[in-house]
Amino acid sequence: MAGFEITDNLYFEDGKFLMIAGPCAVEGREQVVETAKHMKRTGVHVLRGGAFKPRTSPDSFQGLGEEGLKLLAEAREETGLPVVTEVMDVEHVNLVSKYADILQVGSRNSQNFSLLRKLGKADKPVLLKRGFGNTIEEFINSARYVSLAGNNRILLVERGIRTFEPSTRFTLDIGSVPVLQEKTDFPVIVDPSHPAGVARYVGPLALSSIAAGADGLMIEVHPEPEKALSDANQQLNFQQFTDLMGKIRKALPVFDKEYL
Amino acid sequence: MAGFEITDNLYFEDGKFLMIAGPCAVEGREQVVETAKHMKRTGVHVLRGGAFKPRTSPDSFQGLGEEGLKLLAEAREETGLPVVTEVMDVEHVNLVSKYADILQVGSRNSQNFSLLRKLGKADKPVLLKRGFGNTIEEFINSARYVSLAGNNRILLVERGIRTFEPSTRFTLDIGSVPVLQEKTDFPVIVDPSHPAGVARYVGPLALSSIAAGADGLMIEVHPEPEKALSDANQQLNFQQFTDLMGKIRKALPVFDKEYL
Amino acid sequence: MAGFEITDNLYFEDGKFLMIAGPCAVEGREQVVETAKHMKRTGVHVLRGGAFKPRTSPDSFQGLGEEGLKLLAEAREETGLPVVTEVMDVEHVNLVSKYADILQVGSRNSQNFSLLRKLGKADKPVLLKRGFGNTIEEFINSARYVSLAGNNRILLVERGIRTFEPSTRFTLDIGSVPVLQEKTDFPVIVDPSHPAGVARYVGPLALSSIAAGADGLMIEVHPEPEKALSDANQQLNFQQFTDLMGKIRKALPVFDKEYL
Amino acid sequence: MAGFEITDNLYFEDGKFLMIAGPCAVEGREQVVETAKHMKRTGVHVLRGGAFKPRTSPDSFQGLGEEGLKLLAEAREETGLPVVTEVMDVEHVNLVSKYADILQVGSRNSQNFSLLRKLGKADKPVLLKRGFGNTIEEFINSARYVSLAGNNRILLVERGIRTFEPSTRFTLDIGSVPVLQEKTDFPVIVDPSHPAGVARYVGPLALSSIAAGADGLMIEVHPEPEKALSDANQQLNFQQFTDLMGKIRKALPVFDKEYL
Repeated sequence: MAGFEITDNLYFEDGKFLMIAGPCAVEGREQVVETAKHMKRTGVHVLRGGAFKPRTSPDSFQGLGEEGLKLLAEAREETGLPVVTEVMDVEHVNLVSKYADILQVGSRNSQNFSLLRKLGKADKPVLLKRGFGNTIEEFINSARYVSLAGNNRILLVERGIRTFEPSTRFTLDIGSVPVLQEKTDFPVIVDPSHPAGVARYVGPLALSSIAAGADGLMIEVHPEPEKALSDANQQLNFQQFTDLMGKIRKALPVFDKEYL
Repeated sequence: MAGFEITDNLYFEDGKFLMIAGPCAVEGREQVVETAKHMKRTGVHVLRGGAFKPRTSPDSFQGLGEEGLKLLAEAREETGLPVVTEVMDVEHVNLVSKYADILQVGSRNSQNFSLLRKLGKADKPVLLKRGFGNTIEEFINSARYVSLAGNNRILLVERGIRTFEPSTRFTLDIGSVPVLQEKTDFPVIVDPSHPAGVARYVGPLALSSIAAGADGLMIEVHPEPEKALSDANQQLNFQQFTDLMGKIRKALPVFDKEYL
Repeated sequence: MAGFEITDNLYFEDGKFLMIAGPCAVEGREQVVETAKHMKRTGVHVLRGGAFKPRTSPDSFQGLGEEGLKLLAEAREETGLPVVTEVMDVEHVNLVSKYADILQVGSRNSQNFSLLRKLGKADKPVLLKRGFGNTIEEFINSARYVSLAGNNRILLVERGIRTFEPSTRFTLDIGSVPVLQEKTDFPVIVDPSHPAGVARYVGPLALSSIAAGADGLMIEVHPEPEKALSDANQQLNFQQFTDLMGKIRKALPVFDKEYL
Repeated sequence: MAGFEITDNLYFEDGKFLMIAGPCAVEGREQVVETAKHMKRTGVHVLRGGAFKPRTSPDSFQGLGEEGLKLLAEAREETGLPVVTEVMDVEHVNLVSKYADILQVGSRNSQNFSLLRKLGKADKPVLLKRGFGNTIEEFINSARYVSLAGNNRILLVERGIRTFEPSTRFTLDIGSVPVLQEKTDFPVIVDPSHPAGVARYVGPLALSSIAAGADGLMIEVHPEPEKALSDANQQLNFQQFTDLMGKIRKALPVFDKEYL
């Protein structure tokens, strides 16, 4: 894998391990800043948080929009943590770019080729999630839409696929980690929160990803998950996340990874 | 199902059967006009044809863009057939609306909620394809994004889902026809071309859809499928389409449908 | 497709349509005989009914065993209808053969190769269901285990596969009908009851199978479905079945099939 | 998890890690004995090897049958390693029990309830593989068929499920490890060889299983994989296996597991 500068002071290269964490959605100033501070304390590299939320149902909380972006920027000022947040469509690329350090493409937009092409022209790294109905080959082609348009700073995120098994929210395709690493030059990050669907499975899936060779993790954390406006079941609380970070740091050297 | 005016002179209501057909992609003037004329001759109601093509690989033919839209408009002038074509992103809604009579959302954009919301404000009907990784419940929620934004003229298109079976391109979820009809008030159209993947399976899937109660079909037709720039294997040639139309017309009365 | 004698007086060949119906499980004398009589009245060719039931949970009703076989034989005597019932393992082949006219292999035993080989030595036709996790290629290979062992009287039954879609019990792979007919010489029967999972979807799936070219149907019918000891939701009552048979007989000529 | 005696001198309990390895199929004396010796040297606890092989195609190598069982017994005598091998049907339970220490049920027989019930009466432990089309709930129910019949010495093996992703042979359902451990009292073993499908992915899947909390692994090893009569692509050669064992032993303490 070729190394690249994710943001100032954050240079990613082979053998390093990247930690992205934060709430599913930005819900308010206190929630996001408090979480950002805890992320900072535990050594997280990048704060995640959704401002524009692609929700399955139009009746669900759709995110705070630009107000959420501003709160993310505040959290960055308070902590120094770079911020990744989702861009839902081509019209929002400029707006989101004003606030975010990394531009996220969600699973449902993984084959929104207009968006991918536009992000290929952006001067920010792109975090591209695998569509839950997409093969690895399709996922790689989506990344190629971005890179062929000029942007090679891409983080690939495996986040589980649709299968017949209902006991987890999605089925984490753990085999995609070595396959993607074999077929691409981009870092392969795993999001264990969405396939888990419930907090108690996040840890095992996170650790298994490291053992499979993942270059990083992206985990949902909330000060009070039971009150979260989205993904309430799968977000870790601060204590759960701190505990998991301890296990992660202990596991990394065994798999020849160095915490960035 | 509540009836609605698809275009002038094309009023859809319960018990009627709608036929949409045409090439996968608009490739040139002669190809699209010639096809439109054959569609007209066989009694097709709406001409389909892609100008902006959402292709899995960035190396594949991406469509003629606005030039393709103009050719569709020409084909309409020559034949009187209304035209449906795909809108790939929010920025193209106005452009595509200038030329098309029905705005299509492709399978890969079925959960592009920004696009769905914007189409909810359009004054044209929306043809919404099911995402190949989406459940029926998610599909219905996508339609609700459009209708809640104000546009109730929606055609739902089942086009096959992803499964482990490789002998067809996708697995046509034939059961979705009665399920969707039970749970929504929108017409349920089936696209047999994409699940078939090869021309010789299109007929059986088309007829099975009618028998399952579908309110219409959407079929890919090309003057010379073997030379097509996309979906070459699954497009019917004129003779194959004419033959299939004969079978379709024969089958409809048995299933209490009247050809619109 | 090569024709073959299913039982005395029941010769199956290309262009004919075979109807198999009856209860999921044999539950008692009155239930099975009453159903057999109704099947006879409606023109069904073969009575189905399970005596040995392969149930997912060991806590569920497991069938009446040999007692059930005897009741099936009684039903045959009363009506003249040949009987198909499931053989669950190699040890039961001789026992079941004493009573049944056709030996059924269930979906969960579709790759029980020992059983398939043994049935290849039987002098009765074999009705082989597709495993719900099996590809068409695997299904065909399972049939080859039977035929290579010497028995070419095989009826293939598509009964739905496992997918991510939860609104039906299984996803009927309607495309398997033309694929199987292209790749094998065996009649292709569809069981619409198991993919439907509920009675009201059985009709649309049954009719769609005919339109796709199926050579027959296998449908679950029970005098009082709501009291059934298994598959209570998906069994048709007598009136529902009679109505469906009317539609089936009306549909067949349109698809060039003659009711056997 | 309740501990239990797998064989004399092999007592399994919570916190221990069990290693099962050996060839896919027994192909000859030298192959199996040579492999057994290498397994012994590397500290493997149980030798695997198939004598009766459930092959998808009737044209494929079907195993050496009883001759294979005898060779396994020879390998045991030479090395002292207990042996696990597959029982394909009820008629073979007694025969296989004469030679094997642990009775394996393959993925295709995971819902062969007659076989499960019979193994519930056996005085040997049962290694039960998950059907590749089965949900976790169905898998647990299959185990209950064995335990309710009286045999509680059950090893559950996750070995990948069928999904739409073709780049690995099956999709390892890594989330099944914590789910099964939560819902059952049986040890949860992972077979990384079958989901990998190729040797170079076996290591990442094996290590990820340990990190997810698996109680053991079951890995295919062959002296010359490229000459193997089955599963040639996915078997490790001796050097690859030795290297992987080094990584496994290094990983276990990090995940609070002790090599048995």
